[in-house]
Amino acid sequence: MKKQKKSESSKPTEKSKTFGKKSIKHMETEGPKEIADKIKNIGLKIVSEIESGKNPKFETKLRGRGNVLFDEDMGIIKLGDKSSTRTFLNIAHARKFMQTMLVMGKTHEYLTHNKTASIREIYYELKHTVGKTNENTFEDQRESDAAIVDLEHSIDTIREKLNVHANPKGTLYGDITLIDRQHRNDKFNCLKLGRGGWSIMSRMEPNEIEIESVNADYVLVIETSAMYERLIEEDFARKNRAILVGTGGQAARGTRRLIHRLHFECNLPVYVFTDGDPYGWYIYSVIKQGSMALAAHSQLLACPDAKYIGMTIEDIKEYKLENVTEKMKLLDLKRAKELMSYDWFQNKPWQEELKLAMDMKVRIEQQALANRSLEFVATEYLPTKIKKKIFLP
Amino acid sequence: MKKQKKSESSKPTEKSKTFGKKSIKHMETEGPKEIADKIKNIGLKIVSEIESGKNPKFETKLRGRGNVLFDEDMGIIKLGDKSSTRTFLNIAHARKFMQTMLVMGKTHEYLTHNKTASIREIYYELKHTVGKTNENTFEDQRESDAAIVDLEHSIDTIREKLNVHANPKGTLYGDITLIDRQHRNDKFNCLKLGRGGWSIMSRMEPNEIEIESVNADYVLVIETSAMYERLIEEDFARKNRAILVGTGGQAARGTRRLIHRLHFECNLPVYVFTDGDPYGWYIYSVIKQGSMALAAHSQLLACPDAKYIGMTIEDIKEYKLENVTEKMKLLDLKRAKELMSYDWFQNKPWQEELKLAMDMKVRIEQQALANRSLEFVATEYLPTKIKKKIFLP
Repeated sequence: MKKQKKSESSKPTEKSKTFGKKSIKHMETEGPKEIADKIKNIGLKIVSEIESGKNPKFETKLRGRGNVLFDEDMGIIKLGDKSSTRTFLNIAHARKFMQTMLVMGKTHEYLTHNKTASIREIYYELKHTVGKTNENTFEDQRESDAAIVDLEHSIDTIREKLNVHANPKGTLYGDITLIDRQHRNDKFNCLKLGRGGWSIMSRMEPNEIEIESVNADYVLVIETSAMYERLIEEDFARKNRAILVGTGGQAARGTRRLIHRLHFECNLPVYVFTDGDPYGWYIYSVIKQGSMALAAHSQLLACPDAKYIGMTIEDIKEYKLENVTEKMKLLDLKRAKELMSYDWFQNKPWQEELKLAMDMKVRIEQQALANRSLEFVATEYLPTKIKKKIFLP
Repeated sequence: MKKQKKSESSKPTEKSKTFGKKSIKHMETEGPKEIADKIKNIGLKIVSEIESGKNPKFETKLRGRGNVLFDEDMGIIKLGDKSSTRTFLNIAHARKFMQTMLVMGKTHEYLTHNKTASIREIYYELKHTVGKTNENTFEDQRESDAAIVDLEHSIDTIREKLNVHANPKGTLYGDITLIDRQHRNDKFNCLKLGRGGWSIMSRMEPNEIEIESVNADYVLVIETSAMYERLIEEDFARKNRAILVGTGGQAARGTRRLIHRLHFECNLPVYVFTDGDPYGWYIYSVIKQGSMALAAHSQLLACPDAKYIGMTIEDIKEYKLENVTEKMKLLDLKRAKELMSYDWFQNKPWQEELKLAMDMKVRIEQQALANRSLEFVATEYLPTKIKKKIFLP
């Protein structure tokens, strides 16, 4: 993986602004009509290629490690410039070409008819036997998924803007008022939904879900559902003017999109709170810098200014939790080593943290704080860390 | 597993009433104070045994297949009468005895201080080294979980009424107004939360979450998140006066409790909509009759009058879905065979359905209906089945 050089001129404080103002805008302002037009234009180009007897071709970006880079200036994982061309008159490409065309046609239909579909549904919708052959358009969902990814990369957008989506996961709680512009303009405040909170949708695009107002000082992203419930029971959001986002493990795309928007649209700092283990730290890094698998979409999903609030291995001593650590498994150790090698963990605090974890061979869960008392996390641990800015970068 | 005989006198139509009126009531009316008193009484009995020099003992119900039965009259899986006694002065019991006492003390504290905790938190809260020994109270969470289960069975209640809970999962959508009595009396209507819906809590006890009003004709329980989203996009709840419950796979306890309450408190019929495969049918059977693992709690969690709306293997032909079935895996076939042998699947329609599945060796997903059109499930499939009462029992 290549690494882009950090330019001398950019000041750290301007990073987020640069990221926010310059790079995101063109992607954010594209609505369903613009995206539908882009799809149509590819279609028209292919039709004209066919009509003039040329070999029709479809261009997308090359994916995989060889074309992924970490942009230090922007603080996100990005896709490089390499592209990949697929031509119809090529036995190795013809089937995929046909599949991509089917997905293009269908997503264009969704966008112009204001419909949306899950990636499973689009697979079933398009699956059929071709003419009088025994060939199916798709044999399994992996094929249609791949075609969706090709299209996302070809027109430089995310599937959510193609009106296609994966499964939802994640919950939202706090003094934030949302309006669902595609659903009778439902307007609701997420501090007033009992202790359950709002179930985050798979698609959280601004033209669909509008953030009408937020009355909070920061966003706290929480890995486990149990900790999310704990903080609500302690009335943490109200007492600390916080927005709580429960991810329930690895954050789903819709949840990442929401966190991204809370930061960039509402200027809220984002603090991430996970278990103190390689899996939790990886969850954090995906929220912050993006992931290699979705490298092309970091500008719409990542949140490079996010800070890590805990759990850390230092917490074990600091909060006398020696009795409630867990042993790291072999897989954890392997993962920790991998994290150490990533470009975006190349800073002193994280290298030290990872080394300490590997030396001590322990992990520490969020719930372990209950050993001090149930309230401890809400009355002591989090407020102290936030007040004294005890974060990992 | 034993099978209770169906009594001659009970008419089918009175089944639910009997279940609703006679059996549930004593369990439902117990609030935190009554439960705390029950715990206290066990404690007082043990103290008096110690003071009079007796071997202190703790009684709970025997669990496992040998003490599980299917009550045909009530239509639920139940625990039998066999009990199990644990004494302190017994090397094989002493550790578990101590653990049960710790859990009793802690849950009594939760109930009297109006606190709640996840099963992970109670584990961490109680974990410590005993006196000057090297012995930990608990080595891992399985030990505290087992003690919680012992206590639930000993005082004949569910953990949620001990203010302890597992992880939440599931979403609620539709014209239903809830009040969270433990959280500033938040009052909200689940038809007005955009397309996301309300995130169902892990504890859905009546003293906490009050169902203020429901304006609907039935409850539709949906296995997959994608189908739940589809029906919301089609405005199905509003157009059909339905309450939608998305389980996201196997229904969590809180979600089962909510479905149970919607049926018994609000008199709503419950229709369950899953993938057409043994896993989906099992999800249905757990919602309807309860599970063997939680046999003692069926009276608070099960919904014996629930009906199965789909997907069925018959649907494949009826709706021309031959092209979008999937092959059953070996595990599916094994599961189907297992289901066939359960007492609660001993009726003609289910035996035929399971046999057909095993003969054809196919499964059919909810999303496969998209092959007809995205809207098809909402405009044709479900309304027709409900109108014509095409259900499996």
